[in-house]
Amino acid sequence: MRRYKVAIVGATGVVGQEFLTILSERDFPIDKLTLLASAKSKGRQLNFRGDMLQVEEVSEDAVSGHDIVFFAAGATVSRQFAKKAAESGALVIDNSSAYRMDPDVPLVVPQVNPDDILKHKGIIANPNCTTTIMVMALKPIDDAAQVKRAVVSTYQAVSGAGIKAIDALFRESLAYLEGEAITPDALPYASAPRHYQIAFNIVPQVDAFGDMMYTKEEWKTVYETSKIIGRKLAITATTVRVPVERSHSISMNLETEGKLTREEALDILSRAPGIRVIDEPEELLYPTPLLASGKDLVLVGRVREDNSIPNGLNVWVVGDQLRKGAALNAVEIGEKALELGCLAR
Amino acid sequence: MRRYKVAIVGATGVVGQEFLTILSERDFPIDKLTLLASAKSKGRQLNFRGDMLQVEEVSEDAVSGHDIVFFAAGATVSRQFAKKAAESGALVIDNSSAYRMDPDVPLVVPQVNPDDILKHKGIIANPNCTTTIMVMALKPIDDAAQVKRAVVSTYQAVSGAGIKAIDALFRESLAYLEGEAITPDALPYASAPRHYQIAFNIVPQVDAFGDMMYTKEEWKTVYETSKIIGRKLAITATTVRVPVERSHSISMNLETEGKLTREEALDILSRAPGIRVIDEPEELLYPTPLLASGKDLVLVGRVREDNSIPNGLNVWVVGDQLRKGAALNAVEIGEKALELGCLAR
Repeated sequence: MRRYKVAIVGATGVVGQEFLTILSERDFPIDKLTLLASAKSKGRQLNFRGDMLQVEEVSEDAVSGHDIVFFAAGATVSRQFAKKAAESGALVIDNSSAYRMDPDVPLVVPQVNPDDILKHKGIIANPNCTTTIMVMALKPIDDAAQVKRAVVSTYQAVSGAGIKAIDALFRESLAYLEGEAITPDALPYASAPRHYQIAFNIVPQVDAFGDMMYTKEEWKTVYETSKIIGRKLAITATTVRVPVERSHSISMNLETEGKLTREEALDILSRAPGIRVIDEPEELLYPTPLLASGKDLVLVGRVREDNSIPNGLNVWVVGDQLRKGAALNAVEIGEKALELGCLAR
Repeated sequence: MRRYKVAIVGATGVVGQEFLTILSERDFPIDKLTLLASAKSKGRQLNFRGDMLQVEEVSEDAVSGHDIVFFAAGATVSRQFAKKAAESGALVIDNSSAYRMDPDVPLVVPQVNPDDILKHKGIIANPNCTTTIMVMALKPIDDAAQVKRAVVSTYQAVSGAGIKAIDALFRESLAYLEGEAITPDALPYASAPRHYQIAFNIVPQVDAFGDMMYTKEEWKTVYETSKIIGRKLAITATTVRVPVERSHSISMNLETEGKLTREEALDILSRAPGIRVIDEPEELLYPTPLLASGKDLVLVGRVREDNSIPNGLNVWVVGDQLRKGAALNAVEIGEKALELGCLAR
C-alpha cells in the first residue's frame, strides 16, 4: 500500500495538536510527516507515533513537495502558502476560512457531500466547526423531509478561540474561586479591543462582527451550510461562547417540507453515518459537551416535534469541535480523497 | 401612609434571601415582617434593615393574619398553605408554579399586564423566571408588530436550581481545577435519578420531563407567556443549564406580522419599561449574565433582522432570574397592587 508525504501547517496550535493525535490513532498511510509552524515555534519537538519530530518554520519551500498538506494555522497563513503547496502537487486540506466560499474550492463533510471532493483543483476546504457539527444532523433530516428553514443557537467551547482562551477559562475560574481579581484578555478573541470574563459567564459573540450586525461565525453557519447542502438554505444563527473547554453544542430548530414524527426523526438520525443518538428522556440521557469530548461521533438528542408550526423539529447536537469540527473532518477528507483516487489534480 | 404586615414563606432559600434584599432596598411599606420556613430552618436569624429576625416554622396559623404573603418555597408548600393565607385576608403573591395556570389566578409581570392584578381572588402568581425575562422583551415587539411565532433557546444559571446547585458549580469547578474526582449531585435537579457535572459543562435539561419529551421548564415558557400576553402564542423552547451563578440568558427568534427594522426594534425596546438596551456591536457591547447580575433591569441586545423569513428578528435577552425573574417581580406585583388599591379581595 502506498504511503504519503504529509505536512501539517500550524502543528503547535490547538487544532494542530489534534491533527497529530488523530493521524496517530488512525491508519493514515504516512511515509513522512512534516510539522510546520511560525518562526517562534521553530525547533519545538512534538511526539508522533513514538518519534519526536522537530517543528520547522513555514515557508514556500517548506510547504512544497508533499502529497497532502493540512493547514491549521488560520486564514492569513492559508492565503499566504496554500496555493503554493497545491501548485507543488499536494492536495491541500485547509481548516481555515480562507477558501471556504471560493467557487473553485469544494467545502466538504465526507458523510454529507463526499462527491464534491472529486471537483477539487488542489485545495479542499474544511468547514467551520459549528457548521460541520450542525450539518451532520441537518443533512439526514433534509434528505428525508427537506429542510425549509433552520433557527440555530450555539453553546461554543472556548477551545474554538485557541490555547489562550482555554488558559483564560481555567485561570479566571481559579481566580474567581479564590476571590482574586480577573483581567480578561482572550475573549471574544485575543485581538479584540475589549475583553470579557468567560469564567462563570457567557459571551454572545464568536468571531468579529460582520454584515447586519451578525458575527462572522453566524454568517459562516448560513453560507457554509448552504454550500455543503448544495442549495440556498434559510438559516438564522446566534452564536454564543460558554465556559466549556471543548465540544460545541447546538440548539437547532428545523422547519421541514414533510412531516417527521419524533420516532421517524430518531430512526433517520440513528441510521445516519458519523452520528450517535442519545435520547432517552425517561433515563435523563442526552448529549452534553463533556460526553462528546474526545469522541469522533457527533451526538444528537432531545429530538422533539415542534408544535408551533405544522412540520417542525427541535434537535440538540453536540460534537467535539477540535475533532469532528476540525482535525478529524480534515483527515476524513484526506482518507476519502485517497479512497476516490483523486489526490493529485 | 399605611404600612403592612408582610410574610415571606421560604425565607431561607435562594429566592427568599433575595426577597429580603429587595424589600430592604425598596421603600416597601412594611409594618411587620414575618419570616417563615421549614422546621429545619426554625430559629435561624436573618438580617432585615438592620434587625435580626427569627425564622418561624410555616403552618396554617403562621401564614394567617398578614396583609401580603410572598411564597418562595416551591409548589408543594404553596399548595399546602397559600389558600389558607388568602382566606385569612392576605394577598398571596406566589413564586411557585402551583397556581400559575389556574384560570382564577392572574399571572403577572407588572410592566406587561398590570391590569390583570385587578382580577385576583386572593392569589396572584409570579411567572417562571425564564418567562418573566423573555416576556419583558417580547411584549414591546408584540405591541408594535404582533409576534406570530417565537423560537427560544435558553442559557440558565444554576441558582435557578437552588443553593445546592450553586454549591455544586463552585465545588465541582474547584475539584476539576485541582484534578480531583467529581461526584455530581445537584443537576438537572437534586432529586433526579441521575446527575450531571455542571462545572465546565452544560446540561440540556431544566426541570423534569413532561409531554412530548419537552421539559416542564420548556412548557412553562409556552403556556405562561401565552397567559401573560393574553392569547395563544406559537412558541417552542429548548432550555439549557449553563455554568453561570446567576442571570438567565435567552436567544429569542421572533417572527412578526409587521416588519421591524433593527433600528425600529431598538427604538421600541429602549422605550419599554424595565429594559435597558445594550447593543453596540462596533464597541463589542452586549448583555452578559455577569453584567445583568444584581440589576433590576432586563438587558437586551444583539438585535438583528432575521433574513431567513420576511419579518423576523433575533434578540438576546439577559436578566437576573433571582431579581426580575423572581423576587423583584413579586415585590413589583405587590407595589402595583398597593397602587391599584386592590390588596384585599
